[in-house]
Amino acid sequence: MRYPQHLLKLIDVFKRLPGVGSKSAERFAFQLLTWPKEKVIEMAKVLEEVPLKLHACAQCGCLAGDERCSFCEPDRAKTGFICVIASARDAFAIENTHEYQGLYHVLGGLLSPMHGMGAEKLNLDLLKQRIATLHLTDVVLALDSTLEGDATSLYIKRELDPLHLNISRLAFGIPLGSSLDYVDGGTLARAFLGRGRF
Amino acid sequence: MRYPQHLLKLIDVFKRLPGVGSKSAERFAFQLLTWPKEKVIEMAKVLEEVPLKLHACAQCGCLAGDERCSFCEPDRAKTGFICVIASARDAFAIENTHEYQGLYHVLGGLLSPMHGMGAEKLNLDLLKQRIATLHLTDVVLALDSTLEGDATSLYIKRELDPLHLNISRLAFGIPLGSSLDYVDGGTLARAFLGRGRF
Repeated sequence: MRYPQHLLKLIDVFKRLPGVGSKSAERFAFQLLTWPKEKVIEMAKVLEEVPLKLHACAQCGCLAGDERCSFCEPDRAKTGFICVIASARDAFAIENTHEYQGLYHVLGGLLSPMHGMGAEKLNLDLLKQRIATLHLTDVVLALDSTLEGDATSLYIKRELDPLHLNISRLAFGIPLGSSLDYVDGGTLARAFLGRGRF
Repeated sequence: MRYPQHLLKLIDVFKRLPGVGSKSAERFAFQLLTWPKEKVIEMAKVLEEVPLKLHACAQCGCLAGDERCSFCEPDRAKTGFICVIASARDAFAIENTHEYQGLYHVLGGLLSPMHGMGAEKLNLDLLKQRIATLHLTDVVLALDSTLEGDATSLYIKRELDPLHLNISRLAFGIPLGSSLDYVDGGTLARAFLGRGRF
């Protein structure tokens, strides 16, 4: 006995969400069927309005709501700092640390030739242009500590080198609250090399 | 820095899905923002059409697509069997075993007074009416082996007792492929009590 056609479609759209496999998608779909009609329609409406109500800022690539981008305020440019991040989500995480007041620049991904993410997609021209126009002096690379993050950071550093900027990258080390017993060798080695005066 | 209003709404609707907490809902929402517009609209459309295209059969409560309910075919009534299940999903699971050719009856839940699920919501009148009209002789209770499943099975058995039917419940025992070492005491006890001639 096969599921009705539309149920298969519903399971299929849920499977597009990250980390959702067949079993979870089925669970979502059957749960949805128990909802009152209005609740389902409301969910459809919220999704439908996403392209209208949420869009990336043309300058920084961060997420802008209805109003203009709050990540592009002139006060932020005055700090002279621009922080390069992979996705719009990272900006919110960094904002919540309250350690940074500068601008952001969203790459939209990391270098990964195997996934069709080549250097041309990083759109570094816009980054260089913003640095020049806004007279920025400091670039903070806030990218993943993965192979792709390392490659992208190195590539950007090499591309920006002729501009004589202060380029820094986030520190690597032991996560707060973790015990040395549970830290992997690579992290421990980086923490050792990067140790600071105490 | 707070998320834009519509992003919060989006996260909120995802959180309604079973087993999806704040973190997963955020991940879903941010992933959705990277999709092309058409893909988001398509998902909204599939959801919107759910109440139109999928509905419970008025007789058995199973899921019917556009066409009429395939779980209510006259051939199924001829077997004299009706299988009582908690949700429409169970019918598909039982069908896939190819061990059963009878009718189904969806309760829509199990007795659970704490969650507002009282005996009146089980709608046993419809079940009794179907048994009488279709001259059914056998009732198979295919409910969870939980406290709620046990209570519901007992309640239904007591309600149907005056009708002099053959009432059976699914067997309890060791799941296929499992080692005795990993089976809990309760399951082992039930498997012991229910042992069959070999």
